[in-house]
Amino acid sequence: MTESVKLVVDAMGGDNAPDVVLKGVSAALAENSEIEIYLCGTPDIVEPFASSYDRCIPVSASEVIGMGEHPVDAIKQKKDSSIVVGCGLVKDGVAQGFFSAGSTGACLAAATLIVGRIKGIKRPALAVVLPSYNKPTLLLDVGANADCKPDYLVQFAKMGEIYMKDILGVVSPSVGLLNIGEEDAKGSLFAQEANSLLKAEISSFAGNCEGGDLVDGKFDVVVTDGFTGNVCLKTIEGTSKLMLRYVKDALTSSTSAKLGAALVKGKLTKLKEDINPDKYGGSPLLGIKGTCIIGHGSSNAEAIKNGIIAGYNAIRANLSASIEESLRSASSVKGS
Amino acid sequence: MTESVKLVVDAMGGDNAPDVVLKGVSAALAENSEIEIYLCGTPDIVEPFASSYDRCIPVSASEVIGMGEHPVDAIKQKKDSSIVVGCGLVKDGVAQGFFSAGSTGACLAAATLIVGRIKGIKRPALAVVLPSYNKPTLLLDVGANADCKPDYLVQFAKMGEIYMKDILGVVSPSVGLLNIGEEDAKGSLFAQEANSLLKAEISSFAGNCEGGDLVDGKFDVVVTDGFTGNVCLKTIEGTSKLMLRYVKDALTSSTSAKLGAALVKGKLTKLKEDINPDKYGGSPLLGIKGTCIIGHGSSNAEAIKNGIIAGYNAIRANLSASIEESLRSASSVKGS
Repeated sequence: MTESVKLVVDAMGGDNAPDVVLKGVSAALAENSEIEIYLCGTPDIVEPFASSYDRCIPVSASEVIGMGEHPVDAIKQKKDSSIVVGCGLVKDGVAQGFFSAGSTGACLAAATLIVGRIKGIKRPALAVVLPSYNKPTLLLDVGANADCKPDYLVQFAKMGEIYMKDILGVVSPSVGLLNIGEEDAKGSLFAQEANSLLKAEISSFAGNCEGGDLVDGKFDVVVTDGFTGNVCLKTIEGTSKLMLRYVKDALTSSTSAKLGAALVKGKLTKLKEDINPDKYGGSPLLGIKGTCIIGHGSSNAEAIKNGIIAGYNAIRANLSASIEESLRSASSVKGS
Repeated sequence: MTESVKLVVDAMGGDNAPDVVLKGVSAALAENSEIEIYLCGTPDIVEPFASSYDRCIPVSASEVIGMGEHPVDAIKQKKDSSIVVGCGLVKDGVAQGFFSAGSTGACLAAATLIVGRIKGIKRPALAVVLPSYNKPTLLLDVGANADCKPDYLVQFAKMGEIYMKDILGVVSPSVGLLNIGEEDAKGSLFAQEANSLLKAEISSFAGNCEGGDLVDGKFDVVVTDGFTGNVCLKTIEGTSKLMLRYVKDALTSSTSAKLGAALVKGKLTKLKEDINPDKYGGSPLLGIKGTCIIGHGSSNAEAIKNGIIAGYNAIRANLSASIEESLRSASSVKGS
């Protein structure tokens, strides 16, 4: 029998915690019989819930880190918070991964400072799967590092490639650099230097990716600094919402349009679900020793379940070990 | 009788030049009786066309700068190109402004190097009106300066405010800084420093604008460096297109949806036009001595016409003089 995967879930994380988290945990346990969940949160929440499930172990944590708190200060001060206690279980090897829909900043800080970086990784990167036309595109970094050096992007490219291969099954993922022109010499000094390094070190590097190409499926992996990546991710989310709002307005602005709208409503609702990044289940933080998946604060139960399954998949695929291995082989090639 | 406005139009600029440009010129001349157009291009194109109009003066330029050419090299080598000759007319005071849907880079270079910056302006900025929810938002810089210093953004904010007031009639435009968090201390080192400077020097500064807020109408003017601005602009364009593609797919995926689609088609076509940035008529380059409006390469005749009218409005409003004046009053306040 396959050994089960042990994943910590932060019961207190997210705008609608703990209710939607508990629903998501139920759904994940029902869907996948190989997951064992360490449910971390205040005892009044986690103990009664866990007692109804075979594969759910309650872990007490008396404090909660709020969305607005300063990440590093919060994890230093709230040692008994669900995020700090949860990451501690991964550090100690009790569990192999951690999922939270709580404060992204606090999760990043805890994962980096408590679980720790893979040896040789300069900076972990937060990745997100974008809803490109009929195929996924992985964008990273989307916010772990507001300031980057060009060589970080080479490691982001390697980690992104491994994620697309091992988790999403893309055979030969292509890598693009987010930039403001297609030609190699275009862009900021940062982008020009990153372009040179990527060309020299990443064999699947396919050149610059302009903003418009982020969602047209031209590249499988797109690398950028965490500032530009985060702004773009939120711009895509905002523009998608705006467009659906405009479509809704257009469809309710005349009687014949309203009639038509009634006929297309089901399809548009499905579209809204399809383009929701939550369907891929949160953002993996790549480059840390264990697995860490960070869900959207507004996650619903389905998104929580998908995030837990994404954590399971990353652990099953030995993602973290593959990233470590790729760094080792790269340095041995260089050293030879 | 009001004196007419003299505007150079580049007959050779744009993916569909000269045909759509000539159609746009016709439409602009018909719509506005106070415009006089200096139509710049190869004689075989501009002479026969101009001979049919009272207020169209042909200007011969034997060369054309292509979309892929290196901007600064091209304007140095092709002295008899429509862009170089056209900007020369503004420099010499023959015309007050210039419109082109040709190479953005070459137009930026020619406007900056030939027409010249307003005294005291560190860097001119390219601005674009975004299709926010039911109101316009001005984003700048969207590509004139891939590398910026934080203090450039203070001038961008001033120029953006003046544009929104004088051209789009917004009474008290609010200014936001594109950033990756709402709190002042968030973001890259660049963004943190820009935030401090804007807070100190721009009374209408209303804080950080996240990517998602670019299109929700939260701010009237949003400032950023030309790299981030260009990536965001293209991301918005790409995401809008993607969404319309998904909507189209959804509406043709079943018989009842197809029936509904027939009823809503007119509304969706109108939406597509409404969100087209071309309806505001190209991007003004703010901070140069004359007026310079750069149209999208894919401009149709309507977009060309709107760009010409935008140039007319900027000249009529004395935009360039107002920007110069605002710098003078700012420095006299500082000096007092």
